[in-house]
Amino acid sequence: MAAPAEEAAGSGPGSPSSARRRLSIISGHLRGSPWAPGREGPSPSPCKARGAPAGPASGSIPKKRQELLKWNGWGYNDSKFIFNKKGQAEFTGRRYRLGGMVLPTFKEWIEKTFGASLEHKSTSRASLNVNDVPPSIISEEFLQDLIATKISYSQDAEDRVFRAHGHCLHEIFALREGIFRRIPDIVVWPVCHEDVVKIVELACKHSLCIIPFGGGTSVSSALECPEEEKRTIVSLDTSQMNRILWIDEKNLTACVEAGIVGQDLEKQLAESGFCTGHEPDSMEFSSLGGWVATRASGMKKNIYGNIEDLVIHIKMVTPRGIVEKNCQVPRMSTGPDIHHFIMGSEGTLGVVTEVTVKIRPVPEYQKYGSVVFPNFERGVACLREVAKQRCAPASIRLVDNAQFQFGHALKPQVASIFTSFLDGLKKFYITKFKGFDPNILCVATLLFEGDREKVLQHEKQVYDIATKFGGLAAGEDNGQRGYMLTFVIAYLRDLGLDYYVIGESFETSVPWDRVLDLCRNVKERIVRECKEKGVQFAPFSTCRVTQTYDAGACVYFYFAFNYRGISDPIHVYEQIERAAREEILANGGSLSHHHGVGKLRKRWMKESISDVGLGMLRSVKEYVDPNNIFGNKNLL
Amino acid sequence: MAAPAEEAAGSGPGSPSSARRRLSIISGHLRGSPWAPGREGPSPSPCKARGAPAGPASGSIPKKRQELLKWNGWGYNDSKFIFNKKGQAEFTGRRYRLGGMVLPTFKEWIEKTFGASLEHKSTSRASLNVNDVPPSIISEEFLQDLIATKISYSQDAEDRVFRAHGHCLHEIFALREGIFRRIPDIVVWPVCHEDVVKIVELACKHSLCIIPFGGGTSVSSALECPEEEKRTIVSLDTSQMNRILWIDEKNLTACVEAGIVGQDLEKQLAESGFCTGHEPDSMEFSSLGGWVATRASGMKKNIYGNIEDLVIHIKMVTPRGIVEKNCQVPRMSTGPDIHHFIMGSEGTLGVVTEVTVKIRPVPEYQKYGSVVFPNFERGVACLREVAKQRCAPASIRLVDNAQFQFGHALKPQVASIFTSFLDGLKKFYITKFKGFDPNILCVATLLFEGDREKVLQHEKQVYDIATKFGGLAAGEDNGQRGYMLTFVIAYLRDLGLDYYVIGESFETSVPWDRVLDLCRNVKERIVRECKEKGVQFAPFSTCRVTQTYDAGACVYFYFAFNYRGISDPIHVYEQIERAAREEILANGGSLSHHHGVGKLRKRWMKESISDVGLGMLRSVKEYVDPNNIFGNKNLL
Repeated sequence: MAAPAEEAAGSGPGSPSSARRRLSIISGHLRGSPWAPGREGPSPSPCKARGAPAGPASGSIPKKRQELLKWNGWGYNDSKFIFNKKGQAEFTGRRYRLGGMVLPTFKEWIEKTFGASLEHKSTSRASLNVNDVPPSIISEEFLQDLIATKISYSQDAEDRVFRAHGHCLHEIFALREGIFRRIPDIVVWPVCHEDVVKIVELACKHSLCIIPFGGGTSVSSALECPEEEKRTIVSLDTSQMNRILWIDEKNLTACVEAGIVGQDLEKQLAESGFCTGHEPDSMEFSSLGGWVATRASGMKKNIYGNIEDLVIHIKMVTPRGIVEKNCQVPRMSTGPDIHHFIMGSEGTLGVVTEVTVKIRPVPEYQKYGSVVFPNFERGVACLREVAKQRCAPASIRLVDNAQFQFGHALKPQVASIFTSFLDGLKKFYITKFKGFDPNILCVATLLFEGDREKVLQHEKQVYDIATKFGGLAAGEDNGQRGYMLTFVIAYLRDLGLDYYVIGESFETSVPWDRVLDLCRNVKERIVRECKEKGVQFAPFSTCRVTQTYDAGACVYFYFAFNYRGISDPIHVYEQIERAAREEILANGGSLSHHHGVGKLRKRWMKESISDVGLGMLRSVKEYVDPNNIFGNKNLL
Repeated sequence: MAAPAEEAAGSGPGSPSSARRRLSIISGHLRGSPWAPGREGPSPSPCKARGAPAGPASGSIPKKRQELLKWNGWGYNDSKFIFNKKGQAEFTGRRYRLGGMVLPTFKEWIEKTFGASLEHKSTSRASLNVNDVPPSIISEEFLQDLIATKISYSQDAEDRVFRAHGHCLHEIFALREGIFRRIPDIVVWPVCHEDVVKIVELACKHSLCIIPFGGGTSVSSALECPEEEKRTIVSLDTSQMNRILWIDEKNLTACVEAGIVGQDLEKQLAESGFCTGHEPDSMEFSSLGGWVATRASGMKKNIYGNIEDLVIHIKMVTPRGIVEKNCQVPRMSTGPDIHHFIMGSEGTLGVVTEVTVKIRPVPEYQKYGSVVFPNFERGVACLREVAKQRCAPASIRLVDNAQFQFGHALKPQVASIFTSFLDGLKKFYITKFKGFDPNILCVATLLFEGDREKVLQHEKQVYDIATKFGGLAAGEDNGQRGYMLTFVIAYLRDLGLDYYVIGESFETSVPWDRVLDLCRNVKERIVRECKEKGVQFAPFSTCRVTQTYDAGACVYFYFAFNYRGISDPIHVYEQIERAAREEILANGGSLSHHHGVGKLRKRWMKESISDVGLGMLRSVKEYVDPNNIFGNKNLL
């Protein structure tokens, strides 16, 4: 967008300045490249007035997160699984569809699956004891410089503790025990790109460590502060940097500040009739910047793509300077794609501040569905055929029998909303008439969206394929219920922790011909390892195929066990998870499909991408951030 | 795929060695990671016997390329445009459909478009004068080491000159003038990955410069040898490293050596009923490794994807070591994607030796089509709507009026094969009845492929959209002819050079709302610059939209002019091309959609990807290749 000085000067129609004028008139939203000589472009949007009130009006995540979200568990304060006075499982609050509903068979399922007893309740810290929290250590010089920027900040123990962790089991367990190791010394809330530039400049000047904090939903220990970090740790909370800067209806793109969380992004775009369609299970809390940093994947990637398919332009602030391309085109060949140096960098290189994403018109029609298969093998074969014919719906997921029964146990009581799956004629039909064994059958849930006519055509094609693999259509309700459970499942861990049950999920991607072996071997390995390590009751070890691709699939595992009688349950858990990952790798699976590496999976990086591959990542890190300002120690 | 030593030893079903045994039995083709402790995997395929005869039997590109291909022009020796004894334009040979056909209106078109006269024929060197060629300078120690490897090599002037260039205008012009600057000192022909490892080791040992040579079709000066290079330059010709190592029908992937050229890859896969569907215009000659190195794009990317969508696994040899991931999964989150450090590296980091690509069943049905639009604006609007509805055919391209007339001028005489477009009723219908102005109308060519039923449905949808934009279906023949011309167009430059006409193509990607402005402004800028620089006859300045994406399109320009009366035509050409690129950038276009950067477009790299972005690429180069063994000086 600029012409070098040595070109003919002048302002005639052909001159460089004429070209620039044309561009700035026509395309107000395009940014000139900071690196072009004679740059001329519209000035950056003014920063949001600092006088504006913070809080839910500007976005779903307030600065004082603990006022809305649990300080030592998942999600909203007003939402949790409990056992009511009658001893029935219930989900509280009014935020979710399941809210206020009794789950009549769930208690029995827990007792049967884990040998857990509601008599045995564990204790945990109800609230934070600030005396347990390490003091905030920052220099006076830095504090004065920070105050001069007018950027909002806090040294309160509660704010710092909230941002000291993600949602790995060991992190939540430590919170519940009141154990605080290294935590951030200060939290800052930039509200725009320029604020972030200032913070990074201060970090370079005062030799600080910055750990960017988006949704806080990391499950790779990415947010854990390195214990040996002696510099002041700044938790750079992006949640207040959350505006949609512009929507471009002609190109179907939107430029958005990276602190926006998924639910706000979709809600605000929907006001204009658009969506990104990016719906990771964490979307209530996870941020656009976090998705870019971790290579996130969304439930409906079959239509909308994963984050690397959605992103058109990224702007990132690093200690070395701003990284960004000078155009907003769908695809280019200008050497290795620097967007791919940024995506997956997991907070080790800088802070993503603004992202241009593709948007689509909100689909006119949505339809859920479900299919029962006699066994997991037939279900996988069906998904593979659907992938081969390239006719996958927006979402298609296959759960194994254990997860089917788990899902069934979470069925609420109010029959008018959800059709009881195994009740009455349907149960009879599937088990007696069709001969499906309820302890072997499995279920695929489907979501179609788009033009109504195309959806119905598409639906027919998929169900026809399913029939060839012995599948039986099982209704929209079961499909819808499967997806509805997505956002409440994460609340179960806190319930489990109350009753000595610990659990975690982990995932992988794998070629099609390895799916069945990997699923079977990993689940069996988990059971074996538990036995060897003295776990007294067989674990809950289950999996589902959550995404299909041309050349393979994403497989998601749940693993949970009753740790009564185990003196160091977290250590035992970690050993078993490590064995499970070794088993995954031995069976041709990857280190991660979408959760990322963080610190949790660093030990396998060299094996995964080769010594030279790891060296390439290190060389970029050393160039971009030679003093390790972004010192979360992920990946490398 | 390995278990660390500290895991429980033993050989029971759960042990690490048991996992490895399972894996090696089940998946014979998977390679163990070289970086995992205790690695066990199938041994690499033995290298092709050196006694096997080289030549076309093993692939389309012989070692002695000049026996088949032009040493100073494009393509096959037996195929060229000529003017026959009657002064008519004709295409020689039997290799192409156009072969042996007279093109009755082409001469007139050339004379009218360029003011060229067949009286004025330029001269060029018919054959290479080896005395003009710099001597081959290599050390005796290196030569002895090379002989010991048994890798085939040559110091012949002809072999070295052939690999000293790509197909930029200035490179071909220099060849025709008999000007040789720096050329490779030696050509080597590895036949497998292990050969490449040996060559790179020798280069490190003897301080050589390696320039990988795939198809030799670069149009970014990527293959030009840096004049100041004092070390021995080794042209590492990959054409004999060209086997399909395995086809995996279960995962629909194939592992192929990187020297295979497009036509051979598709031909050999078709024997098993598969294809990659990757069809760049250069596919007769360009190689898989070259596609990876330049981020190639293919005509049918709407179905099959661009190279980054096709690639599952890459193995590259660098001075630092081998780079590769340890699994073959569709998608992972293990930090920044190192495949994207390799793709686009344009021969600056190492040699790609083996690539796993996705394959698809050969489609059952193919159908061409064409649509006439009253003007270019309506055509672009139609393509934009097709992209918005995400219903683009395998290929859809829109040419402007000048290219439509150009294509019409290339119409051969034999009416039974091609329907004459403007003859008879059709011409009357379109121009008189429908009111299309033959000097404004433009044409879109279409290609559909897939299941016959779906193709016909898809076709209807696209033609319905076209009608809304004033488009008129113009028949399959015109579509087919448009695509058939793809492979012969490149031969035109040599004809032009015979008559003082020089020409080049260049391309960009651009957001949808900038397409019309960019097309108009760039074409006008070219015309203006030609006038200012004393070009005596208005240039041929034309464009087409060759690819559609969600957020924009690829635009491809042809630019040619009669340089009679210009003393330094190449210099004038370069100035005009540079101005055209400035105009592209000023209008929001990218530096390149798929041709790459090479040395031709280096000056805009900083502006394109930012100072920090460029620094990241440099940091990777300095780590992977600290002594600049891969010294083609592209990109950075």
